[in-house]
Parts: sequence; structure tokens; C-alpha cells
Amino acid sequence: MSGLQDLLASRAALTPWLDALARDIFDQLHQKTRGEHGVTRASWGTGETIACDLLKARAQSLDLATRSDGIGNLYVELPGRDRSAPRWVSGSHLDAVPEGGNFDGAAGAVAALLAMSIFKKTGVMPARDVWAVGFRGEEASSWFTGLHNSHLGSRAALGILPDSELDTAIHRQSGLSFRQHLQQGGFAWPASGAAKNDLRPDTTHGFIELHIEQGPILETANIPVGVVTAIRGSLRARNGKVTGEYAHSGAVPHYLRKDAVFAAAEFARECEDFADGARDASEDIDVTFGEFTTNGDTHGLTKVAGELRFTIDVRSSSSMLLDRCGTEFQQIAKRISDKRGVAVTTGDFAKSDPAVMDPGLISALEANARELNIRTMALPSGAGHDAADVARCGIPTAMIFVRNANGSHNPDERMEISDFLQGVWVLAATLAR
Amino acid sequence: MSGLQDLLASRAALTPWLDALARDIFDQLHQKTRGEHGVTRASWGTGETIACDLLKARAQSLDLATRSDGIGNLYVELPGRDRSAPRWVSGSHLDAVPEGGNFDGAAGAVAALLAMSIFKKTGVMPARDVWAVGFRGEEASSWFTGLHNSHLGSRAALGILPDSELDTAIHRQSGLSFRQHLQQGGFAWPASGAAKNDLRPDTTHGFIELHIEQGPILETANIPVGVVTAIRGSLRARNGKVTGEYAHSGAVPHYLRKDAVFAAAEFARECEDFADGARDASEDIDVTFGEFTTNGDTHGLTKVAGELRFTIDVRSSSSMLLDRCGTEFQQIAKRISDKRGVAVTTGDFAKSDPAVMDPGLISALEANARELNIRTMALPSGAGHDAADVARCGIPTAMIFVRNANGSHNPDERMEISDFLQGVWVLAATLAR
Repeated sequence: MSGLQDLLASRAALTPWLDALARDIFDQLHQKTRGEHGVTRASWGTGETIACDLLKARAQSLDLATRSDGIGNLYVELPGRDRSAPRWVSGSHLDAVPEGGNFDGAAGAVAALLAMSIFKKTGVMPARDVWAVGFRGEEASSWFTGLHNSHLGSRAALGILPDSELDTAIHRQSGLSFRQHLQQGGFAWPASGAAKNDLRPDTTHGFIELHIEQGPILETANIPVGVVTAIRGSLRARNGKVTGEYAHSGAVPHYLRKDAVFAAAEFARECEDFADGARDASEDIDVTFGEFTTNGDTHGLTKVAGELRFTIDVRSSSSMLLDRCGTEFQQIAKRISDKRGVAVTTGDFAKSDPAVMDPGLISALEANARELNIRTMALPSGAGHDAADVARCGIPTAMIFVRNANGSHNPDERMEISDFLQGVWVLAATLAR
Repeated sequence: MSGLQDLLASRAALTPWLDALARDIFDQLHQKTRGEHGVTRASWGTGETIACDLLKARAQSLDLATRSDGIGNLYVELPGRDRSAPRWVSGSHLDAVPEGGNFDGAAGAVAALLAMSIFKKTGVMPARDVWAVGFRGEEASSWFTGLHNSHLGSRAALGILPDSELDTAIHRQSGLSFRQHLQQGGFAWPASGAAKNDLRPDTTHGFIELHIEQGPILETANIPVGVVTAIRGSLRARNGKVTGEYAHSGAVPHYLRKDAVFAAAEFARECEDFADGARDASEDIDVTFGEFTTNGDTHGLTKVAGELRFTIDVRSSSSMLLDRCGTEFQQIAKRISDKRGVAVTTGDFAKSDPAVMDPGLISALEANARELNIRTMALPSGAGHDAADVARCGIPTAMIFVRNANGSHNPDERMEISDFLQGVWVLAATLAR
């Protein structure tokens, strides 16, 4: 523990050096992968490989060993005091959406590398080995169409990427299968034997991913660092519909109408009320009707609407609450259908389970932040992350969010380096033990 | 009055003859103006002129004098006992929407002609002169685009058609102005002098228009004949909009959202509640949000909607209630905007005033129906009619609706001739006095 105290004591002195190092790495990343609007780092494409090579070179300049697995994920290795103990792994993805921002993904891999550079600079040796990882293909949905569940790089590292996705994921630009695309890029995948599966519960003590927050919660609360409680699951209905009856708005009186708009409005209101009630009971839930539209081909100012289509996207950290929503929303639909003589149908719901972050790791992050005098708040992650797949494989997992003003997946991401460094210090303090 | 009793007493005996006559006229009309789907009688086009000529020939075969005004409206004249008393006028329009039904419009002109034929057949002379009228151009909105207020034929007969509309109404097919179209058809309009204005309050005792009901109220109530209380006015907003803020449906929590869909749903529900309340207080009102849609270019399953556009069409027989709706809906919009941090705006409302039917004439129609053992019900007219313009010019006006199963403006209009004849008898009994 004295090593850790040395580490923490050096913080003020190291800050100018660390600040310059972080800026330099992010500037290089930006310069080498930017286009006319934002940065572009296609999954298994040029920009992603540039980012990989850049971090690898930085690691090597710190005398750190680097290695890639067959699918191209980058690993940087720092030995700890107990070489036989299960290791820490920390990092995030190196790809980005088309014309995206410089920080979504890359910040997590850079943070792990900076934590290692702090260990090197201070001469403090962490209690166990630490691996920094730069995953490929977390944004694969932006680059590959067809049947696949995205997060292709991390799932390969975890040994849970089915070979079938190599053939069913199709590159949006070239039309090649993912398998052909990998071959063309010189990647040896699928790998054989033990090399197939670098991230395993038996050899991994815990996984920590730092990521910019993609929403405005920290910005609004004026807090630099967040500790993620869970990566929310979702319950989605893509084909919701209210079917009423078109009618003359002047000649057909109220009591003979089957008005799709008023029925849909009541349905949306009651679903919103349900969510409000759950939040009042301190449950985590957000309900979104993203699409909500009468039929442009048949609606009109002087016609009672006979049809309205809608989508529902429910997000929650609670799998049970997602299930309850499905049941409850269908009951609301039935009640309104019966009352109004229309048909309100949600269609099938697709569910994605939440990934709960490890309570012990959450406590450790919060305790270390307190020790560093860094203000944090607990918050769920609405978007998906590699960390969700890691957690589902039984590896204790946590996420650090860094305040970010303008959302992600756009060129205007605005993470302050000073906020980022606070996240790096919380990470380093945690990896030290 | 003994003449009237003779008329009523002859009803049963005349029914087979009258039934055959009605069927014959409607069959001819249908045969001569039908196309592949439904009938087509363009305003100042071939089908409308065929209908005019057909009724004119029928009238002449009954020894009735016929006449046209410069714009082509048809008048049939039956002398009454007091030739100097203001006259009755009854009829409707002879044009129809493209691929429309056989009865919308024509039934009213045929009914007036049949009432006259009853007078002729029974030898009963009405107390005052009766004119049957076949208006042109009530459906002008279907045939002419540009700036005009439709009902072109009746407004010409009333002297309230501004010459400017002759140039600003543009024929949808030919692109000619209404003025050019009239010239090409050989119509002498604008007419000069007294001939310009055949329908005047000082020479008209009252105007009665029989029309098929365009909604399902009589059909649902199982009553053959309706007496119209008012032609409803409307209050319309074409450019309603809710402006919120697009946001990530997973990353942006409830309390930081400006959700256009939930705001719009609450707005629609509260407007519906207002209408329900007014109806509970026995007021006549229907509110329709015919278009209600998020933006198809920018909405999505995983995005909080930042925009929703809507239209409102309020119908009521009460001008004051229409005004109250405008005020109330804007207050609701403001309350929801303030509460939710979005902007709910209705845009400008366009108001069309209701036309109240003459209470004395309504009573007369109902009393005559009772005397004839014909069941009637009072109801408002949701759609516009020539009668609305007549009423606005200060001529006592009433409308008789005839039950019609399948709505109007389509080839499936289904008026039973037996229902129609009940309407004709109520009309004849009223015109007799």
C-alpha cells in the first residue's frame, strides 16, 4: 500500500507531464484519422489500424510489451508484483462511427496506457499484472450490415463470437463478408487453440472501461467523473400500430369514430405515467416513442386518422422492470382498444438484458475517487459497450464515465482533458491494488 | 289548407308513380354521367351540363318553365296562388366530385322537381311561387385550384361571387382561368344588371335544400330523414408543431429530455378532454387531429423525438364555441410548453363561421313530417353546402338530410329511394304553404 500512497502523492507533480502526454496522443489520433467532418475509424479499416499502431508505438516507447490477437485487438502488458495472480484488464475500442468524434472509444484505451505510464514514471509496481486493451469493431453496426450482434472485437477476445457471424456480417461498402474482409486485411481469424480466447474469467481479476459519457448527466450535474452502475438493457417494439377507421371530420360524430390519434395519444400518456411511477419508486427507466406517425399517404386535415404507427424503446438497468413494461404496456393497449373500439398493438418486443456492474469494483472506484478528492456520481449507461459483453462472461466489470458536453458519435464531442485526467487517476489508483 | 290536405291524402296512391319517376331520373343521370368508377360531373364540364339538360327536359315535359342564369344555374318555375309573394326556392347542385356518387347534389334538385311534379299531378297549387334550382359548381374545389371559396354557382346566384375569383380560380386540367373556362363553355358571365342576382332576400320566402347525409348518424339511429339544425363552422390549424430536442434514447435521462411525442400526446389528450366536457354540456363539437407525425427524415427507434407536426380541425354549430376552442387550445399548448420545456404551437387558426338554419323553417319541416308520419331527427351538417351561403345572405334556409349508408364523394353512396321519397314529401308539404 505504500506504493499506492507514493502514486497518489505524485499526482500534483505529474499533472503537467500527464496533461501534455494526453493532449499529444489525442492530437496525433485526431490528425491521422480526421476527414472533412470528424474522425473516421472503420472497424477493421484504415483509421482503426492507424489508432492501433499509434498506441502500440506509444506503449513500446514506454518499454511496455505489446501483442495482438488474431482478430487484431491490441494488448499492452505491464507486469505486477504477483505475476501468477489474475490480472487487471482495462481499455475500450479504437474504431469510431463514420464522421464521429475523437474520444468515443479511444479515450478508454488511452486512459489505460496513461495509467501504465504513471506506474512507469513513479516506479510503483501494481499488485498484479495489468493489461491495456484496444478492441476493434465495437462500432461494427456502422460498418457491417447483415446478421451480427456488433462488438465483434471484444466478443472475439472473450471467445463468444460465433464463427457464423463471420459469414453473415457483410461490409457495407465492399459487400464482402466479415470473413473475407478479415482475410483481405491479413488477419488470422478464427484463431486456433488457446490464442482464441485472451479474456477469460479464470485469468482476469477485473475489467475496467473508461468512456466518455454519451449523455448530459455529468455535464448537467457539474461532476467530472461517473461510476457506472449498470449498462442498461432495452425492450424494443419496432412495429407498434393503432388501427382505427378513417372518417369525414365534419360528418362523422364523436360517438361513431375510431380515432387512431386520440387512442395513440392516450396509450403514450399511460405508458409515460407508468414510467413516471416507476421512477418515483426509484427505479431506473426511460421510455421513448421515437417514431409516432399517421400515414402520410392517407391522412389529411379533414379526415379522422385511421392509422398511426409507433416505436417503443424502453431502457432500464433492471431486467425485471423491462419484463414488467412489456406486460403492462400490452395491458394498457388492450384497455384502450376495448374502450375506444380501435386496435392498439405493440407487435413483438425484442429484449436485450442489462449488464450489472460489479458492486465491489464500483465501491473500489468510488473509494479511490474519494481518496483523490475527485467528485463522482453513480449513473447507468444507456448505450451499449464492450464492458457489457465482458460482464456477461462472468468477469467483474466496471466503467468510468468522463463528462462530455455534446454527446457522442459526432465531431463535436467535448471532453475536457482535465476531466479525463481525473478519470485516469481513479483508474490508476484502482489498478494499483 | 284544403289543397294541402288533398296533397297529403294522395300520398299512398301516388307512391308507385313517384317511386318509378325518381328511379327513372336517377338511372338516366347515372347512365349518362358514369365512368369506370362512379359518376363524374365536373363543375362547368360535360357531366354537369348533361345533368342540367336532363332535368330541364324533365321539367319541360311537366309543362314547367325553365331558365338559366348567365353562369348556367338551372331554374324551374311553378306559379303559386299569390304570384306577388316572395317565392320558395329549393334545390341543390348538379356537379359531383371526380368518380363520385350519383346522389350527392343531384338528389336535392331532383327532389324539388319531384315536389313540383306532385303539385302538377294533384292539381294542388302552392300558396306562393316555387322555384327548383340546380346549382353549378358546388364541388368547384375538386375541379379548380387557385384562390376561390368554392360554391361558385350558388354564390353567383346570390350576387356574392367576386369577379376576382374568375381570374384566380384555375382549372386543374386545362390550366385556364375560371373566366376563360366559362367563355370557352359559352357562358355569359359576369352578367350585367338585375340578371346578375336571381336569389335575393326580398324576393325569396325561404330556401330548402335536400341532400344525402354524408355521415352515418341517420343510418346508425335508423331514421330516414334528418332536419339540419346548422351547417357547422370550422376552426382549422394546418401548421401545428411541437418542437422538442432530439436525444439518445439510452443516454439522456427523463429529466433532461424535451420529448416532442409525449408533449404532443398530452396536448391531444387535453384538447380531447375539452371537447368531451363541451359535449357533456350538450354543446356540438368534434375535434380531429388528422395529421400527427414525427419527422420521417430524422426520427428513429433510439432517438427521443425532437419534432412532431399536427393539424387540428374543430367543427361546431356554435361560432362562440369555435372561438373558445382557439383560446383554450392555445392555453393548453402554453401550459404544456412551460411544463415540459418544449414549444407546442398551433400556428394560425382559420375560421369558417357556422350557418344557422332558420328556426321557423326547422319547426315547419318537423311539423309537416309529423303530419306525414315520417320520423325525423335533428342533426348538424358537418360538411359545407350551398345552403350555408344562402343562409349567410339573410334568406331563411333549411336542409333536409336523407339517410345514406356509405358516406358521400364515393361511388358507393347508398340512398334508398323509399327514404328519399319521404324527404320529398316533407319538402312538398312545406313548399305547399
